[in-house]
Amino acid sequence: MLDICLLGTGGMMPLPRRYLTALAVRHNGNTILIDCGEGTQMALRANNLSPNPIGIICFTHYHADHISGLPGMLLSMANAERTEPVLMIGPAGLKRVVDSLRVIAPGLPFEIHYRELKEAEEQIQIPEGYIRAFKVKHNVTCYGYSIVIERRGRFDAAAAKAQEIPLKFWNRLQHGETITGDGRVFTPEMVMGPDRKGLKVTYTTDTRPTESIVKNAAGSDLLICEGMYCEAEKKEKAIAKKHMMFEEAAEMAAAADPQPKELWLTHFSPSMIYKQVEQAMGGVRSIFPDAYLGKDGKSLELKFEEEEAV
Amino acid sequence: MLDICLLGTGGMMPLPRRYLTALAVRHNGNTILIDCGEGTQMALRANNLSPNPIGIICFTHYHADHISGLPGMLLSMANAERTEPVLMIGPAGLKRVVDSLRVIAPGLPFEIHYRELKEAEEQIQIPEGYIRAFKVKHNVTCYGYSIVIERRGRFDAAAAKAQEIPLKFWNRLQHGETITGDGRVFTPEMVMGPDRKGLKVTYTTDTRPTESIVKNAAGSDLLICEGMYCEAEKKEKAIAKKHMMFEEAAEMAAAADPQPKELWLTHFSPSMIYKQVEQAMGGVRSIFPDAYLGKDGKSLELKFEEEEAV
Repeated sequence: MLDICLLGTGGMMPLPRRYLTALAVRHNGNTILIDCGEGTQMALRANNLSPNPIGIICFTHYHADHISGLPGMLLSMANAERTEPVLMIGPAGLKRVVDSLRVIAPGLPFEIHYRELKEAEEQIQIPEGYIRAFKVKHNVTCYGYSIVIERRGRFDAAAAKAQEIPLKFWNRLQHGETITGDGRVFTPEMVMGPDRKGLKVTYTTDTRPTESIVKNAAGSDLLICEGMYCEAEKKEKAIAKKHMMFEEAAEMAAAADPQPKELWLTHFSPSMIYKQVEQAMGGVRSIFPDAYLGKDGKSLELKFEEEEAV
Repeated sequence: MLDICLLGTGGMMPLPRRYLTALAVRHNGNTILIDCGEGTQMALRANNLSPNPIGIICFTHYHADHISGLPGMLLSMANAERTEPVLMIGPAGLKRVVDSLRVIAPGLPFEIHYRELKEAEEQIQIPEGYIRAFKVKHNVTCYGYSIVIERRGRFDAAAAKAQEIPLKFWNRLQHGETITGDGRVFTPEMVMGPDRKGLKVTYTTDTRPTESIVKNAAGSDLLICEGMYCEAEKKEKAIAKKHMMFEEAAEMAAAADPQPKELWLTHFSPSMIYKQVEQAMGGVRSIFPDAYLGKDGKSLELKFEEEEAV
């Protein structure tokens, strides 16, 4: 199961009832955080989440509204007595930026490991899946992220029996192990069906529409995408500042193949009032029906698809 | 008039309903901010205050909960199109810390001027008064601040007439000008009574009790003082970490001569629950009766004392 919580929906500056856009994704007791602007640790608390299980922090880019909450977050993790290392992932320059911010968070009881992204797409293994970073198009280098949990194929007991594979090896084979025993070599492929559909959430913000977003949104259970402005007269500004309109986000969701199951918009301009935002959703849904406004604390539990009984 | 707003009351980390301790003091359209932890710009907004009129930012010290909100605040001031310089005041190292944090707030449309404190007490002139910084006792160099608005003596019209001072010079003399005219020299002392009681607010946090606090709290209309812990069993921790107990704050207020008119406690430990805090106020008020719990957004307008009709 992937537990997803959109911690905030604001762009540029945190507001009293609108935290800055950031995402917490929980899987098997570990939390992956994407972006960490000012107040993100407050948003975690507001959603009854702890900073301590955060093992990976991904940054889209280093504008302040996406990283200014990091020093406080690191200190809160230290106060929660974290000792395991934290992996940070982000565009080139990551260590330099984090080191500079750490002037006010110098001594930590855990190590920080850095993965600086250089390619247009990079993949980072995590337990039971991977994070895929893909370059998008902002006025500084910026990445989107997909978090994918893979699901092995179904175990074929009949095939195991037919091949006379001893029962004592079945469980290890199901977990992907290759086993040498009883004078033979047993591989998972002998007993496992093809990989089944896993879980996928994709997050991208501070970008113009790109092919990379359409490609990586494909097959997502949830696409969380920037919607900085909804008013037609703001389109020129969006293009100039390399941000995205509501309808552009919907167009990308619609173009992805297969389409994401849901689209949530986020990273709203502080100048937008909620009523405008609500009204704009009609146009958005005419392009991509399963589109929703992001809200602070909006959550979703993604589960593996039910399967037909065999 | 001094308009005082305690923006938050938290210590260590910002919580969803408790912003970090910071103070906004407004006088004649200018705002002085003391401390700027993560979320302080949200607290300003929550109190319908704008970041733009902030001309002076004082820092007690550079622990993250007192300065981590600075990069976002500077960017919000830039977004509000500020162009006038901002004066920052704080212990030695100020420019180095601010420069380091500005890795995520590099280009600003206004200059930053720095006043790094070195002496045990320093005084900085402001229009119609001064800021006095005084060293306190934390585990890093830390200062408290008094903001003082001075009030000139009363104009003595009878004396002006008796000395045959032309009417055309009266207004300028009232504003402190020395005038050469009509073949004579006129000084304010010729017509002005002794200085009258002005306004004074004193703010200190992250410190053990000190003589400097007692001295500078004297004559304050309002003393805002750290009360990190209220439980007797936390006293050892307070001493070790160089923080202050509720009752110690009250003892300093009581020892000041003349006593401050009011004491507000702030910078509460995140471990304290509100009920404990409320209950502890009985003991505090037995030491200093005019003691109050700080609350997020607690405000006070200080006005010059009414005078008896002459």
